[in-house]
Amino acid sequence: MKFSVTVVLKKDVLDPQGKVVQNTLNNLGMNDLKSIRQGKFFEIEIDEKDQKKAEIKVDDMCKKLLVNLIIEDYKINKL
Amino acid sequence: MKFSVTVVLKKDVLDPQGKVVQNTLNNLGMNDLKSIRQGKFFEIEIDEKDQKKAEIKVDDMCKKLLVNLIIEDYKINKL
Repeated sequence: MKFSVTVVLKKDVLDPQGKVVQNTLNNLGMNDLKSIRQGKFFEIEIDEKDQKKAEIKVDDMCKKLLVNLIIEDYKINKL
Repeated sequence: MKFSVTVVLKKDVLDPQGKVVQNTLNNLGMNDLKSIRQGKFFEIEIDEKDQKKAEIKVDDMCKKLLVNLIIEDYKINKL
């Protein structure tokens, strides 16, 4: 079973990496850009047929390693 | 108009970062994990009301800066 996980910084947390990308795109002449924020993306394949159990396992991975819950939000989607 | 862009390494490109995450999760006792690949995620807000034009602009940003087309694939979604 395959899942995707997207991890983004919480709204009020500064995103210096995104800021640099934004400035660079502006310098490239793209003035319509209002904002850009960068995050992480994971594609996870798991050996578990029950969707609920699989989701719990993926959630566990996020909490234990992939996501810093203090500054980041995450979302799990089935692929 | 808001878009999300996910960037992942192409299938045949080695993903050392993902490999390290996979080993670490295995060491944490998660043996059901078959594979994990890490990529980038962007949340882009653009000042353009026409969806087609906006999509073309986002695609342009990807090609010019966000994505290395030689080793990476990308996908654009409207949010």
